Amino acid sequence: MRVRFSAAPGAWDEWAAPLRDACPEMELAQEGDPASFDAIIYAPGGDIADFSPYVNARLVQSLWAGVERIVGNATLTQPLARMVDPGLAAGMAEYCTGWTLRAHLEMDRYAQDGVWRNGQVPPLAAERPVTILGMGELGRAVARHLTAIGFPVTGFSRSGAPVERVTVTDDLDLALARAQVLISLLPDTPGTRSLLDASRLARLPRGAWIVNPGRGTVLDDAALLAALDAGHLGHAVLDVFRTEPLPPDHPFWAHPNVTVTPHIAADTRAATAAPVAAANLRAAMEGRTVEHLVHRSRGY
Amino acid sequence: MRVRFSAAPGAWDEWAAPLRDACPEMELAQEGDPASFDAIIYAPGGDIADFSPYVNARLVQSLWAGVERIVGNATLTQPLARMVDPGLAAGMAEYCTGWTLRAHLEMDRYAQDGVWRNGQVPPLAAERPVTILGMGELGRAVARHLTAIGFPVTGFSRSGAPVERVTVTDDLDLALARAQVLISLLPDTPGTRSLLDASRLARLPRGAWIVNPGRGTVLDDAALLAALDAGHLGHAVLDVFRTEPLPPDHPFWAHPNVTVTPHIAADTRAATAAPVAAANLRAAMEGRTVEHLVHRSRGY
Repeated sequence: MRVRFSAAPGAWDEWAAPLRDACPEMELAQEGDPASFDAIIYAPGGDIADFSPYVNARLVQSLWAGVERIVGNATLTQPLARMVDPGLAAGMAEYCTGWTLRAHLEMDRYAQDGVWRNGQVPPLAAERPVTILGMGELGRAVARHLTAIGFPVTGFSRSGAPVERVTVTDDLDLALARAQVLISLLPDTPGTRSLLDASRLARLPRGAWIVNPGRGTVLDDAALLAALDAGHLGHAVLDVFRTEPLPPDHPFWAHPNVTVTPHIAADTRAATAAPVAAANLRAAMEGRTVEHLVHRSRGY
Repeated sequence: MRVRFSAAPGAWDEWAAPLRDACPEMELAQEGDPASFDAIIYAPGGDIADFSPYVNARLVQSLWAGVERIVGNATLTQPLARMVDPGLAAGMAEYCTGWTLRAHLEMDRYAQDGVWRNGQVPPLAAERPVTILGMGELGRAVARHLTAIGFPVTGFSRSGAPVERVTVTDDLDLALARAQVLISLLPDTPGTRSLLDASRLARLPRGAWIVNPGRGTVLDDAALLAALDAGHLGHAVLDVFRTEPLPPDHPFWAHPNVTVTPHIAADTRAATAAPVAAANLRAAMEGRTVEHLVHRSRGY
């Protein structure tokens, strides 16, 4: 099997060896006659903009979970698969659990100023409802950690498919109204853009935290800042933004109730993702079911 | 059953109603003829210093998990039971998990200064060994959360009793050498005082975090500060101290790599603890086995 690799400069050094280890029968190349390739391994920032010459490619395997930078490409007629990396899901679950606990434990209440503030017994996790928007692979991984710790978890999902120990609903307003901590894992699609606008944010309980390691387009930045300034929301932990890197003069950086992390919540890790890509490439070659195919109309 | 209540001023208001709800047959009093009482409910700060007149008391039930302020009282000849409150264990597990994740996720690396620091993929929990000193009720509750998230957990315990998914050892040096995060839940006993001295701290890996919500006497304060100043240890999160409240001029408050929390990691909660006390009092009255009796020579 001949596979074309197209990704940002630097990615080759990270990925070539793990991919070849995971799939020794693969001939992986960064250039060559498009018609000669049986498949494409893709991440944003590479040299392929026009997929139409790749007439024999039976699969485009993304190395990223988010596919918004390729799914709208009109030249792409080949099947497209998202990366679902067990390492990425683990990292995402750890990030969301850590920041949920930082909110829950009210860690930021304890300034290092010599004042012994022990008047208040904090509630237990069982008394701190958390809502997760998006109950795909990542949402379920996050929910497993949070429910293990004892948080009551509500999951917003269009499909409404049941998830163990999670109250799943397709009623967004209900999901928001319960959320003392709101975690957004929604993908970037026409249906999710600016979904969390002023009216949706107003439905959150007073003092709620927002944790967004999903996609930056889901939040209306100005509405979020206004809700924080008004004291309606407690804090926002943001890992993804409409423009990345987040420009140094963006008001998020300077806001006392915003924490910016630099898109590090969940990285695809070559060591755990390469075997997933290899299994999918083999399935495509052998005519078996390819996992995590993207539904073009849905956008993920 | 007549029960004498002795605790700090204010405790009566918090405890009397939950205790009477949990044990309606109990006659609970703050004073009266010592010989008339069948049992004592005790917390530090109350009026009983001499237990010898309570000749008919079949049990002294502590409301606190830590009993170091009563166990050495020479007038105490009655059986003494520690409080093992499911709410306290839950709170302790949440605190330890939250601070372990703060260390693990390197949250403090991301200053809000406009600099996008995304060069480094953090390790997963599976690559971050955590050691818990003390594998009693609290240690096991903490271990359940940490192992659910994927941390490899080593537990130091004198008894060496097995704990699911935890590598239990009675070899302190081994347990320390593995700990990228060290959590101490050790009680205050002659055998644990200043256990974590300069030579023990030197066995921790470079950059390790210490989380101590157990007892302040376990740590040698000066040795800890020296290890932080030398850059050998990364950070210390301290909830308990040799003197509490921690004096405003104590160097812990001002050290950039120390976080002080005001003994809030685990509070006994009357709602969950009163039924535990009630069950133990009934067992003592009926001659059944009393739970969590303190071994005087061991000190806990």
